Amino acid sequence: MNPTRLAKLSAALQVSHLDAIVLNAGPSLVYLTGLHFHLSERPVAVIFTAGQDPVVILPELEMRKLSGLPVKAFPYPENPAAWDGTFRAAVTSLGLDGKRIGVEPRQMRLLEFRYVKSGASEADFPDASDVVSRLRVRKDADEVAAIRKAVRVAQSALEATLPLIKTGMTEKEISGELVVQLLRHGSQSAMPFAPIVSGGPNAANPHATPSDRKIHPGDLLVVDWGAAVDGYVSDLTRTFAVGEVDEEYRRIHQIALEANAAGRAACKPGAPCLAVDKAARAVIEKAGYGQYFTHRTGHGIGMEGHEEPYIRGDNAQPLEPGMAFTVEPGIYLPERNGVRIEDNVVITEEGPECLSDMAREIQVVG
Amino acid sequence: MNPTRLAKLSAALQVSHLDAIVLNAGPSLVYLTGLHFHLSERPVAVIFTAGQDPVVILPELEMRKLSGLPVKAFPYPENPAAWDGTFRAAVTSLGLDGKRIGVEPRQMRLLEFRYVKSGASEADFPDASDVVSRLRVRKDADEVAAIRKAVRVAQSALEATLPLIKTGMTEKEISGELVVQLLRHGSQSAMPFAPIVSGGPNAANPHATPSDRKIHPGDLLVVDWGAAVDGYVSDLTRTFAVGEVDEEYRRIHQIALEANAAGRAACKPGAPCLAVDKAARAVIEKAGYGQYFTHRTGHGIGMEGHEEPYIRGDNAQPLEPGMAFTVEPGIYLPERNGVRIEDNVVITEEGPECLSDMAREIQVVG
Repeated sequence: MNPTRLAKLSAALQVSHLDAIVLNAGPSLVYLTGLHFHLSERPVAVIFTAGQDPVVILPELEMRKLSGLPVKAFPYPENPAAWDGTFRAAVTSLGLDGKRIGVEPRQMRLLEFRYVKSGASEADFPDASDVVSRLRVRKDADEVAAIRKAVRVAQSALEATLPLIKTGMTEKEISGELVVQLLRHGSQSAMPFAPIVSGGPNAANPHATPSDRKIHPGDLLVVDWGAAVDGYVSDLTRTFAVGEVDEEYRRIHQIALEANAAGRAACKPGAPCLAVDKAARAVIEKAGYGQYFTHRTGHGIGMEGHEEPYIRGDNAQPLEPGMAFTVEPGIYLPERNGVRIEDNVVITEEGPECLSDMAREIQVVG
Repeated sequence: MNPTRLAKLSAALQVSHLDAIVLNAGPSLVYLTGLHFHLSERPVAVIFTAGQDPVVILPELEMRKLSGLPVKAFPYPENPAAWDGTFRAAVTSLGLDGKRIGVEPRQMRLLEFRYVKSGASEADFPDASDVVSRLRVRKDADEVAAIRKAVRVAQSALEATLPLIKTGMTEKEISGELVVQLLRHGSQSAMPFAPIVSGGPNAANPHATPSDRKIHPGDLLVVDWGAAVDGYVSDLTRTFAVGEVDEEYRRIHQIALEANAAGRAACKPGAPCLAVDKAARAVIEKAGYGQYFTHRTGHGIGMEGHEEPYIRGDNAQPLEPGMAFTVEPGIYLPERNGVRIEDNVVITEEGPECLSDMAREIQVVG
C-alpha cells in the first residue's frame, strides 16, 4: 500500500465525482498498492473508495499477498460457481449499486467487469483512466531513478551485443542474444517488450517482429529494445548500417537523427505535447520524407512501455515536470529500408533531460 | 489465416446460435488467423461470422500485417477521435446490431468491447469462451510437437542451471540464470511466465515470486519453469533439497512424487478431469497432508500457460485425445517449506503420454 498515492486517489475520486474506482491486475494496481497479480482465468479486482480501506476480491490461494495490509479481503475458492457470490458480497458491502464506479478500459477485462457489475447492476462505469494516469504521469524521484537505471541497463546490453552481430545472423538470433545481454546486465525477466531487430525491407515496418531473415550488407538494421528495472522500463531505438549501405539510406538516417534532436529540444515544461511532434516532423517533412514518417513521435514510459503522455500532433496536453516519454521519429521506405532513432526524455523544472546517451550516428555492424 | 480452423469456427458459431464472435489481440486470434497484435492503447478487434471474410479493425500502421490475407480491413488513423467511427462502420457493415456476438471475457478488454458495442448497442454479447476453447483444447500433431519441444528446451535449460546453483545465491539470481539458459537452449523470449524459484518458507507459497532471499541448507527449493517454442509452452516443476533437509521435508517430497504418479496414471481418455485430481489428492490425503494441498491438480497448456482443461475436483469434462495439461500436486507447510512436482501430459487414443521425463526424485543442490 502506498498511503500518499491512495490519499491522492481519494481526492481525485471526489474531484471526478466518482464513488469508487475498480482495478484489476496491472500497473495501476501495483502503483497504488504494490500488489502483483497475474491476469489469469481467476478474476481479481480491487475497489477503491474515498476514506475506506480498499476491498480486494481474490482467490483464496492468493491471500498471503494481503498479509498485514489495511484492506478488506473477499477470498473465493477454486470452484467458479462460488465466484459470483463473492463478488456480489464485496460490491454490496460498499453500497455501490446505482453509483459511479470508474474503470480503466485499457486494462479491465470483461471477466472482472461482469462479476463486479453483477453486484451493482444499476451503477455507471465511466472511463476513469485519467484519474489514475494523472497521478502516474508525474514521476517522483524514485521513479525517475528507476527509469534511468533501465536506460543504463539497456544501453550496456546493446553495447555488449554489437560486437557479436555478424552478417548472416538472423534477426531472431540477434534479438535472442540481446535478451541474454539484457538479463546479464540487470534487466528483470519481465521486460517491456521483446527487442525488435529488423533489417532491410523488414526495417520499413515500424512494428516488425524479428524474423528468420538473415541480415546482409546494404541493410539498415533497426534495433528497438528496452529493459525493466525496479518495475520501470526504458524504450530505445538505434539504427545501424550492415556493411555498406546506399547513399539514400545514409541520408534518411541523418534526417531521422536531426528530427530526433529537434524533438528533444522542443521538450520544454509547459509546451504542449504536439510541439514535440511538430518539431520532429518538420525536419522530416522539410527533407521531403514526411509521408514516410507514419506514426506519432513518442509515448510515455514508466511502469508500462506505452502510457501517457502521448506525443501526437493533436495532443495539446502540456508537458509537466516528472513526465517521461520517448522521442522516436522514423522514416520507412516501403519494401526497402527504414530508420528510427529513439531516446527517453524526462521533463524537469529546468527543461528536458535526456536519459539516454548512446551514440546516435550511423555505425556499421556485421 | 487457418482455413481448417476457420471452417470449424463457422460450424461452431451455428451450433451455438451465435451470429458472430469478436476477438481482440491474444491466443485465440493467433490460433484462428496467425495474426499477432499487442494489447496496447490502440484497440484491435476481429469479427468472425459464418461464411464471410473476417473483419479487422486496426491502426493504419499495422495494415502490413494483413497483406494478402482474405479479410476486410477497417484501418483507423492515430487520432483517437476517429476510432469510434471506424468501429461503427465495421460492425455496421456486418449488420450485427441486435444480434448475438460472442466474446471471450478472459481476454476481451472494455477498450475493444465498448467500441464494438457502440456499433451494435442492441446486440447481446454472450460468453463464447467455450466456442474457441473447444477447438483449441484438442491439439493437433503440430501443436503436440511444439509442446514436446518446449518441454525438452525447459528440461535442458534446468539441467544446465543445476550445477550453477550454490548456497547463498538468491532466488532471483537463480531465476535469472535459468532464464538465460532457457534462451540459450531455444526458448522464445516471450515465455509463458518468469520462472518461480522459491526456497524454505517461500516454497510454502504456491504462487511465490523470486525474492532476494538467499537459499541455505535445510530449504526445499521449488523451481517452476517453462519454455515457449513455436508459440506453445511447457510448464514444469521440480523440487530440490538445499544440502541436508529435515526428515519431514523428505517425506512430503516423496508423497508429492507419489501423488504426481497417481495423477498421471489416472489420465485416461474418456475419464473426467476430476478423476485425475482425485487420484493425486487421495495420496496426499491418505498421508495426512490433505489440508496442505491447497490448489487444483493441474491446468491445460498450449498457446497459453493456463487454459482448458482444468484438472479440478469439480470438473466432469472428459479427457479427450489431444488434450495437454499439467499434473502438479503440492504440499505447502505454512511458514516452513513446500514441495510441488509438475509434469506435462498429453492424451492419446492409447492413453496418457508424459512429455516430461526429468528425474522427479529429490536431488541435492547447492
